[in-house]
Amino acid sequence: MKKSTIGLFGFGVVGEGIYQVLAQKPQLGVTIKKIVIKQVDKKRNAPENLFSTDANSILNDPEIDLIVELIDDAEAALDIVLKALNSGRSVVSANKKMIAENLSLLIETAKKNNVSFLYEAAVCGSVPIIRNLEEYFDNDLVSSVRGIVNGSTNFILTQMIKFGLEYDLALRKAQELGFAESNPSLDVEGWDARNKLKIIILHAFGKLIKDEDILVKGVNSITKFDMDYAKEKDFVIKLIATCKVNKSGEIEEASVLPTFIPKYHPLRLTDNEFNGVLIGGELTDEQFLYGKGAGRYPTSSAVLSDISAYLFDYKYAYKKRIKSVDKVTPPIKKFYISYKKENNLSLSSLGESYETYESSSHCYVTVNAKMESVLSLCEQPDVSVICFE
Amino acid sequence: MKKSTIGLFGFGVVGEGIYQVLAQKPQLGVTIKKIVIKQVDKKRNAPENLFSTDANSILNDPEIDLIVELIDDAEAALDIVLKALNSGRSVVSANKKMIAENLSLLIETAKKNNVSFLYEAAVCGSVPIIRNLEEYFDNDLVSSVRGIVNGSTNFILTQMIKFGLEYDLALRKAQELGFAESNPSLDVEGWDARNKLKIIILHAFGKLIKDEDILVKGVNSITKFDMDYAKEKDFVIKLIATCKVNKSGEIEEASVLPTFIPKYHPLRLTDNEFNGVLIGGELTDEQFLYGKGAGRYPTSSAVLSDISAYLFDYKYAYKKRIKSVDKVTPPIKKFYISYKKENNLSLSSLGESYETYESSSHCYVTVNAKMESVLSLCEQPDVSVICFE
Repeated sequence: MKKSTIGLFGFGVVGEGIYQVLAQKPQLGVTIKKIVIKQVDKKRNAPENLFSTDANSILNDPEIDLIVELIDDAEAALDIVLKALNSGRSVVSANKKMIAENLSLLIETAKKNNVSFLYEAAVCGSVPIIRNLEEYFDNDLVSSVRGIVNGSTNFILTQMIKFGLEYDLALRKAQELGFAESNPSLDVEGWDARNKLKIIILHAFGKLIKDEDILVKGVNSITKFDMDYAKEKDFVIKLIATCKVNKSGEIEEASVLPTFIPKYHPLRLTDNEFNGVLIGGELTDEQFLYGKGAGRYPTSSAVLSDISAYLFDYKYAYKKRIKSVDKVTPPIKKFYISYKKENNLSLSSLGESYETYESSSHCYVTVNAKMESVLSLCEQPDVSVICFE
Repeated sequence: MKKSTIGLFGFGVVGEGIYQVLAQKPQLGVTIKKIVIKQVDKKRNAPENLFSTDANSILNDPEIDLIVELIDDAEAALDIVLKALNSGRSVVSANKKMIAENLSLLIETAKKNNVSFLYEAAVCGSVPIIRNLEEYFDNDLVSSVRGIVNGSTNFILTQMIKFGLEYDLALRKAQELGFAESNPSLDVEGWDARNKLKIIILHAFGKLIKDEDILVKGVNSITKFDMDYAKEKDFVIKLIATCKVNKSGEIEEASVLPTFIPKYHPLRLTDNEFNGVLIGGELTDEQFLYGKGAGRYPTSSAVLSDISAYLFDYKYAYKKRIKSVDKVTPPIKKFYISYKKENNLSLSSLGESYETYESSSHCYVTVNAKMESVLSLCEQPDVSVICFE
């Protein structure tokens, strides 16, 4: 195991946690030499001389061999990470947005410079999903990955179903407890889950998928009316990210969709800020990985595992052939669609419905239909779309 | 990815499953050249010329580079595996008893010959616990591993708590469904779980622990009376294998014990033939891995993952320093002890009890006591010992 001198970008809850743990564990042989931050005048729980606002104080220091990047700004992060990789430094990052948007460039840059670029913390917090896809499911036989990959929306949906809260109230509770951002759109509209699914798809199937090939519907349209329907049928509602491939290895579903989860389903038990992922293989029994997906400790934990793997010179091997995705033809599935009566939504083009229901205020239909058609008809945020598992 | 020619020992449900899958997947580049079996006159679903009763037909074939060992007999298996490793062949095995009893010898032999010796299927069926301990938790910072590692006993306990069955009836049901052996003592007395825990301890902590340093109480003493107590307190009872180390890395608990599991505990959800393991780290949040632990498909699935890893030249690295264990001083814990009134068991030496209960037929006490003292006083199979989580 080698020793390492780290340059840290960002000193939020995760950065501070990592600083403290490494300070308490000198036997790891890891030293944080410099921490680059935006605001210099804030009081921080670490010696003042560690801090700088100048990125070059890390990037130009030849003693620093590992950059740990934990800042919010995806654009600034990309600049730092590329400079670090190109200067022959390894990088650990938790920036899912930056990574998802630049996967191909980042992987090539790390490969070209023969350095480690690790990002377990970017997907499902503490759950070692990337490492399992890389190491245990390291052949071309994974057939599906589906799971709850966003802690904020899972917290909101859990509060709605358990305590009968309306969406707005559940969102506010999540924000008060630090499980949702003050601007929650990245989470509640499903984009964060899509970013994570993009990264998962690369490690599970060796495929670089385009944003528009992942069908997304968020949870911000879900109402108490929908929850009542779920309860009546003994379902819960979860935001599920799914990717399935067919026997020829072509993607036949890539989606982030609110989904009814029946009793005795492993994902049913994944509540609040927890994440859970099911990995299915052509030859393997479905495996379930579960742990905390958001918050200081889970993210720190994954970052520290990456730092420790780096000490053993670990690199993602990307053993699965990396190829782009030509065309995804999503399957026909059973959907529940609900809307306010005043919306007067016409869904007849979707085909014959199983059920239709109309009260004085709300309507719903259940119908077997193409995923794409459903989502394009139901783009408005006040129309709920929930898929049947 | 290299190609491989396999010699298979054993053609039970797992062996046959693997044969079928590999026959359907020529693109894997894996061929089974010879299958060694005990009885030659049985009708089998594979070409007759593949079978032989002569171990040397595999061991002396220079074309065979990988031995997959799936026989029941631990002694015969050891002989085969040692010969295979010493002849420069890699080995995949699912024989937990053979592996647990010869860990040190087997690892040294594989190392000396620079070959792979993989045994994911020996621990928790399809759950990739060994690989995760090896790869993701590859530093010296794992602080605990605890879980349900035996599917047979978990099936029995689940049936008892869910359907109010007495132990004998639940055991018979498990046997009828193929979840327990006709001679169930290895499972129900806790020895199988102990074997798996030994292997887990090596990969989690780099320690070779002696059998007698793992405290074991099986489930064969558990009665409906105990289940009623559990239900009243809203607990379930699970057979939990536990290993915890202190800050200096010394083992402070290594045990296989029936345990009361409270509501909202991840292990509570692990029912019937499923296995579930929680991995705790000094720096990491507790992770939960869950999947099927027994049966044809789960075991085949793990064996196939090992075969596939071998194609990438994967070897366990045993990065944690392998050292023997000096002395385990198990902690004081809260226990529930129940017995038939006629037994007239004297437990006063354990110290003051929290609760004592006596009916016309049964008694129980709850007491804080040393694990060792409790187990030595309660060795009889008609005395139940259940630990509080």
